[in-house]
Order: sequence, then C-alpha cells, then structure tokens
Amino acid sequence: MNAICKLFQIQYPIIQAGMIWNSGWRLASAASNAGCLGLLGAGSMYPEVLRENIQKCKSATDKPFGVNIPLIYPDIDKLIQIIIEEEVKIVFTSAGNPATWTQPLKKHGITVVHVISNLKFAQKAQDSGVDAIVGEGFEAGGHNGREETTTMCLIPLLKSKITIPIIAAGGIASGAAMLAAMNLGAEGVQIGSRFVASIESSAHKNFKQAVINAKDGDTQLSLKKLQPVRLLKNKFFLDVKAAEDRCASEDELKQLLGRARAKHGMFEGDLEEGELEIGQVAASIIEIQSVQEIVTEIITEYNTLVKSGFDTY
Amino acid sequence: MNAICKLFQIQYPIIQAGMIWNSGWRLASAASNAGCLGLLGAGSMYPEVLRENIQKCKSATDKPFGVNIPLIYPDIDKLIQIIIEEEVKIVFTSAGNPATWTQPLKKHGITVVHVISNLKFAQKAQDSGVDAIVGEGFEAGGHNGREETTTMCLIPLLKSKITIPIIAAGGIASGAAMLAAMNLGAEGVQIGSRFVASIESSAHKNFKQAVINAKDGDTQLSLKKLQPVRLLKNKFFLDVKAAEDRCASEDELKQLLGRARAKHGMFEGDLEEGELEIGQVAASIIEIQSVQEIVTEIITEYNTLVKSGFDTY
Repeated sequence: MNAICKLFQIQYPIIQAGMIWNSGWRLASAASNAGCLGLLGAGSMYPEVLRENIQKCKSATDKPFGVNIPLIYPDIDKLIQIIIEEEVKIVFTSAGNPATWTQPLKKHGITVVHVISNLKFAQKAQDSGVDAIVGEGFEAGGHNGREETTTMCLIPLLKSKITIPIIAAGGIASGAAMLAAMNLGAEGVQIGSRFVASIESSAHKNFKQAVINAKDGDTQLSLKKLQPVRLLKNKFFLDVKAAEDRCASEDELKQLLGRARAKHGMFEGDLEEGELEIGQVAASIIEIQSVQEIVTEIITEYNTLVKSGFDTY
Repeated sequence: MNAICKLFQIQYPIIQAGMIWNSGWRLASAASNAGCLGLLGAGSMYPEVLRENIQKCKSATDKPFGVNIPLIYPDIDKLIQIIIEEEVKIVFTSAGNPATWTQPLKKHGITVVHVISNLKFAQKAQDSGVDAIVGEGFEAGGHNGREETTTMCLIPLLKSKITIPIIAAGGIASGAAMLAAMNLGAEGVQIGSRFVASIESSAHKNFKQAVINAKDGDTQLSLKKLQPVRLLKNKFFLDVKAAEDRCASEDELKQLLGRARAKHGMFEGDLEEGELEIGQVAASIIEIQSVQEIVTEIITEYNTLVKSGFDTY
C-alpha cells in the first residue's frame, strides 16, 4: 500500500492544500469525501473560526482530514490548543521551525507533516520527527522558497537524501503531473491551484474566474525582499513591481502591502487591489468544477497513463 | 517507434544540449555514439571553428548529429552557409524568430527544431514549420524565458495545444526525470547540465568540478534586465546582484557583464570572474563521468522504473 495512503488512511495519495481564504470546511470535507486528504487552511482563521471549521468538517465527513498551520501565526498557541481539544488527527505545518511544535503535537497522537522548499529544511524536518514532508517547488502559488528550486529538481534531490515519505507540491493539477511527481520520487502529491478553482473552495467567484482565465506567464514570484510569494499579475502586483524596480525599501514595500490584501483579493474578489496567490499551473486550469469531478479526472488520467505503460529502450 | 527516435534516427529519445563552450565535437560525437543525438553548440564558435567541429564530428561518429544555433548570432548567414555546405542534417535554433530560418533550412532537407519557453513562441515555431520543439523550463541553465515557467508546468501546457513532438528541457539529469518528462507529454528530453559534467565536454575542469559541487540554491536566474540567464552563484553573480539591488541601469549591467565572461568562466575556468551557466539540477549531479556512463545510467534507471510499474487507484 502506498505510504501516504497508509499514513493518512485515505484512498488516493492526494492532499488538498490548506490555503488561506480558500480552504474552509466545505473544500476540506469535499476533498476528504472524494478520497483525498482535505486540509483546513488555518492561516486565515481566527482561533474560534478554526474551531467552527473543524466542527463543521467533522459533521460533513467521516473521513480523515487535517489542518495546515503556518508556524508564524501570531496566536499559534491558541490554534494548537483548539486542534488538540477538537482531536484533529493530522497537522501540516509550514513557514517556521518544525523543531518547536512537532513533538508537542505528536505527544497528542497527531500525525505531523512539514512543508519545505529545500534540502536543508527537509533534513531539519526529518530530524524533528515529522511523519512526512511536503516538498514545494518554485511554481507553487503563495509563499515560496528563496532558492527557487522547481518541483522537477527538488523532489529527486529530496528522494536521494530523505528517508521519510515525500509529498510533491507545485505544478500539479492533472493525473499526468501526479504520475510525473511519483516518477520523481514522491509518494503523494499536494494540489492547491486546481482546488482553488473548485465549486467548494471559499475563494470569491471573481478570483476563481481569474484563475481559469490565467495564461502562462500570468503569475510571478513577487515581494522577494519580504517573503517571496507567487501572485497573479494584477494592478497590485504591478504596483509592487514598479516599487521594486525603483529599489523601494522593505519598509516601503510593507506599507504598500498593508494588511488584509490577501483576504481582499481572494475572499472578497477585488482583482485590482487584492493579493491573488496562485500557482503557475493556473495556465492549465480551464474550468471551475466540483471537487469530486476534479479528483475523478485526475485519478482517471493517472490510471490511464499507468496502464498504457511506456516504451523501454 | 518513439517520434523523436524516428525523427532523428537515434536509439534513445535523448538530445545532448548544444551549449556554448561545452559542446564541441568530442561531446557531440560521444553523445551520438552512445545512442543519443549529439549537438554542437555553435553559439561560441567562429564560423570556421564550427566547420572544423562539424568535420571532426563526422570523423568521430557515423551516427546522426546536429548543430544548435542561437538566431541572435551576429554572423548567422555564415554559420548557415557552413551547415549547408557541410551537409549537416539536423539544426536546433534558439533565441530568435523561427520564421526567418526554418524554411530556408528545410529547403536543404534539414530537420529543424526550435527551442521555446512559452506557449506563444511554441505556436510560432509550429507555424513556421519546424519538425519539433524543445520546451525549456525555468530550471534550465543558461539563457531562459521571461515567464519563468517550469518544466512541470510548461510541458503539459504545450502538450494541450501543440501537435508536433515536444522535447522537454530543464531539470532533467536522470532516468526518473526523463520518465517524468515523458509522462508530462514530452516525446524526448534534452539534457544539458549532466553532460557539462562529462569527461568529453569542453568545459574547463574547474567548471566541471564546480558543477558537481553545487548544492540546491546555488544557481539563480540573473541579469533579467538584459537577457535572463541562470548562473552558478560566484563573485561575478554577486557583483551583478549588488548592482541590481541598487537598481543599476541596463547600460551599467552591460558594462559589468562586458565581453567573453562565459568563455572566461566555462572554458578557461575562472570561477570568480567568469559567467558560469548551469541548471538547477546541478545539485543532483555528483560526479564527472564519461558520456557512455551517463547515458547507460539514465537509460537503465528509466527502464527499471518503467518495468517496475506504478500502482493504480
């Protein structure tokens, strides 16, 4: 049995990424019900909002689901407390040091996975005792590594040095890309952008439409002086670019970014002034579908490719 | 029979990239003798040097080989004339408009392939009548596209819109990555960095050593204000970065770049002041081997993976 299916007790080795403003209980429960691992994106939730989402997710599915927590979250103790109280069994951590929270979570019987973008952090995560890692390539949407290593380069490198299971993320929105990631050494995939463009995602309809309209070259890694983040190119992106092109300081960029731009863009649908986080693979996403349709399409394509086989030489 | 093997009459669907200062007749003939398509990198050759390399390549192999020509080459008419006179059968063009030279070359019975990094240029290349395209991802070494689309995202996008065969480039140095590229929709792969670190490459030994020493994060896309190029991080790279960080003008950057830095670095072995073009995948390249060893390793790994099969779900 596939290591990721076994670890999470799921049917398909597919994780629905826990994305801010996109991954509420509707998306997570739909993904879990479709045989994947659904994840709530706690990064955009107040602690009590997370509790409500966990409770609603439990009501909507009897399958395993989890929570993604960015470790830079200001009130992280409160989030962790709620996760323990609500008996969530799976936590994905990102954007921080896995040494701090992995063991406290594991003491409560929680399966812990950490998201990394380079080999050094992968080794730190493995040393901290996590059960698996997500290796996230440069093409992924949202916050991203400074090394800019792509999925194609990152996964084989991780595979050559890391012994725990690897979940590939970045550029995966189809069965073909899922199989490619498995060829590279991953035992599962984390899919974000394609699920943004799902009926069940909590993204604003304007944002979903912008995702399916995106062409190649329409996203770029931005705000590298702060934290690199892959954005859809809109007015806000161009304002940042203009500021960067005149060598604006970190403080100026922080002021330009301001607060709540991600909510404003992805959740409230302001396509001009909002921060629109999405992966390069948006260029291949052409319609808004139900989670069940998306998962069926991916698995069918994957199985067809596997069964068709490949020439040897 | 695989479309790329058929097109070039070769045993394996592997192209050895025609790279400036690396791909002379020794490398190209070794690659062709090992069952791949060897390419001479004409971009760093004076016309008469190209003629000499073609003639030596013919003496060293009776297998098909080709020439890569950057279409921005100043004396391009002279290069093309030599290619026709020497009856070279295969030409890869890059860095320019395929509409100009594709038909003139094809009138001489030459098979023409064009290198692109986005869908728009792929469509232009197809419209110009090329026989295949190379889709080159962001992770590739040397000059690179402005869209920064990775191999994982580029190849499926091309596959969905382009009808001629696609050769994937960028991030491929192993049988696993070759299989991944085929699953994404490519019918062949172009491999550069791994062949830089071959005994037969004309790269300086210092540069070959630097390639096998490289870790993840040791390359970065640089000089985006001029022509984006992926470089190994050395003193020259850091000088460029410092200039870019203080918003140096294009003219200042051109002056800093100067002339012959690529030769100085890759061919003459100046690891401090030279321009060292290499792909991200260098982080996974750990030894200098003969071309035959490299090809055998890649094909063995590829065949083993294909034969082992993958689970269906």
